[in-house]
Amino acid sequence: MDARRSLAPKRRAIRHPNAIPRMTHTYELRIYYQDTDAGGIVYHANYLAFAERARAEMMRALGAPHAQMVTEFGVMFVVRRINLHYQRPARLDEVIRIESRILETGGASLILAQNFWRGSDSLAVLEVGLACVNAQTGRAARLPAAWAARLMQ
Amino acid sequence: MDARRSLAPKRRAIRHPNAIPRMTHTYELRIYYQDTDAGGIVYHANYLAFAERARAEMMRALGAPHAQMVTEFGVMFVVRRINLHYQRPARLDEVIRIESRILETGGASLILAQNFWRGSDSLAVLEVGLACVNAQTGRAARLPAAWAARLMQ
Amino acid sequence: MDARRSLAPKRRAIRHPNAIPRMTHTYELRIYYQDTDAGGIVYHANYLAFAERARAEMMRALGAPHAQMVTEFGVMFVVRRINLHYQRPARLDEVIRIESRILETGGASLILAQNFWRGSDSLAVLEVGLACVNAQTGRAARLPAAWAARLMQ
Amino acid sequence: MDARRSLAPKRRAIRHPNAIPRMTHTYELRIYYQDTDAGGIVYHANYLAFAERARAEMMRALGAPHAQMVTEFGVMFVVRRINLHYQRPARLDEVIRIESRILETGGASLILAQNFWRGSDSLAVLEVGLACVNAQTGRAARLPAAWAARLMQ
Repeated sequence: MDARRSLAPKRRAIRHPNAIPRMTHTYELRIYYQDTDAGGIVYHANYLAFAERARAEMMRALGAPHAQMVTEFGVMFVVRRINLHYQRPARLDEVIRIESRILETGGASLILAQNFWRGSDSLAVLEVGLACVNAQTGRAARLPAAWAARLMQ
Repeated sequence: MDARRSLAPKRRAIRHPNAIPRMTHTYELRIYYQDTDAGGIVYHANYLAFAERARAEMMRALGAPHAQMVTEFGVMFVVRRINLHYQRPARLDEVIRIESRILETGGASLILAQNFWRGSDSLAVLEVGLACVNAQTGRAARLPAAWAARLMQ
Repeated sequence: MDARRSLAPKRRAIRHPNAIPRMTHTYELRIYYQDTDAGGIVYHANYLAFAERARAEMMRALGAPHAQMVTEFGVMFVVRRINLHYQRPARLDEVIRIESRILETGGASLILAQNFWRGSDSLAVLEVGLACVNAQTGRAARLPAAWAARLMQ
Repeated sequence: MDARRSLAPKRRAIRHPNAIPRMTHTYELRIYYQDTDAGGIVYHANYLAFAERARAEMMRALGAPHAQMVTEFGVMFVVRRINLHYQRPARLDEVIRIESRILETGGASLILAQNFWRGSDSLAVLEVGLACVNAQTGRAARLPAAWAARLMQ
């Protein structure tokens, strides 16, 4: 499967009428020693942590910060699916950029595309599926309506 | 793409004559506070770190430890592709088991399936693509012949 | 302050009659890529994570696992103080050993010494102060009596 | 030992004529799920990672970024000593601030104080000792003169 192809908005838009990509959120971060490994490059699992930071800031920008989801609605997002292609390594002291956009929203789920860039070089392409769950029971829970509306802006 | 389907040995075996699953390596680990997050469950990126520990021990069991790859042959594995489905969360103090097996070997690459279990409950299913690269330049490098033989045992 | 000196049991025993070091718990672990950084050595913060694994297993060996502390008594340990001296770096694929022992127990606190070894080489010396707190409020809470007894065996 | 007392500039200034605290560098960061643990608070080892980010930005602000130290002079900093007192926990979505200042500079070493704040609440107090080492051999190396000058501004 070609990740870039699977991220193509047109093909998805046909199957999912609510899947028109709207805003793209941009998040920048610098690479520190803690992010690297003895291979001299960013440790591969850390891309998922970077992507979580970017999603957290995207949610905040949309007016739906994580902690508020838990305290106000008793729900939280959990990651259900990861599809990640690594293209070029990132190294110490570099600044990388994550562009995130929502591909699809369901009643209790969300699919995002998150692209990692260093300048104009694509470093990695991530597609991530999230589920909204009850923070106590872990069971699927509908997205609070006000938030769903914000995510579909 | 359905990960479990893509992991089916038969379908792959048709396309890749060298893809007959051979040994399954089993690795157990316990969940500590460091592995969890404020949602009360294992932080999703940590499954990739757990999987790396399991692969490292699998390589060691095959007589091909990571550090030796670098010092003797000047090559190392980097992760190229991750496909990960989360099914059930893991929690503090639980013991989980990772079963790893090689799906395919190429001249400079490797595909593994790694399944996460807690007893008989499947927690997550991972397919990971690795590339063998020159440790200095990062360019694709053939797997040392002796090691390729071990991986295909 | 010289950490090794502060760890000397005799001097402490004088001030703290209950501070006679009893058992030493030993925990071994291997170094993986995830533990290292671009300097080629174990990232310094990871010694604290390694030490937490060793303490968790020590508690378990004493019959007082972490998860049970929370579910049965509603309390947990939090780290209050760290004093850590790094002596020699650890590297990929090495096996290191952590020797942990309780230096002092108070009504709601615990002080441990944890020494990191690679064979007969001392890698690091850690003194860590823990507090027992209510898992909901975060306030200081007395150690459950049965557990305090186990820790002072 | 009282960490805050040991950080008092006056007392140190008497013993170390070159220890007059100069600039204070401020670094802010937000707490994400990846930083927390199942206790609902920031995992204690992560304070060291946060402190490293703050030091990296401080060095950069002083014109001495980490990667350049390695590529230009073949040296890097390693952590030799940590003294860390935790006072209040930090939680998901909070913004915390790290104030860093150099307490002492030696020919091949550096001592910094790093204070963690949430608004006007002190969260933690860290004193960290760094050594400058040859990036290949790991042996002590003098700080490049131009950089020592910058650090002592």
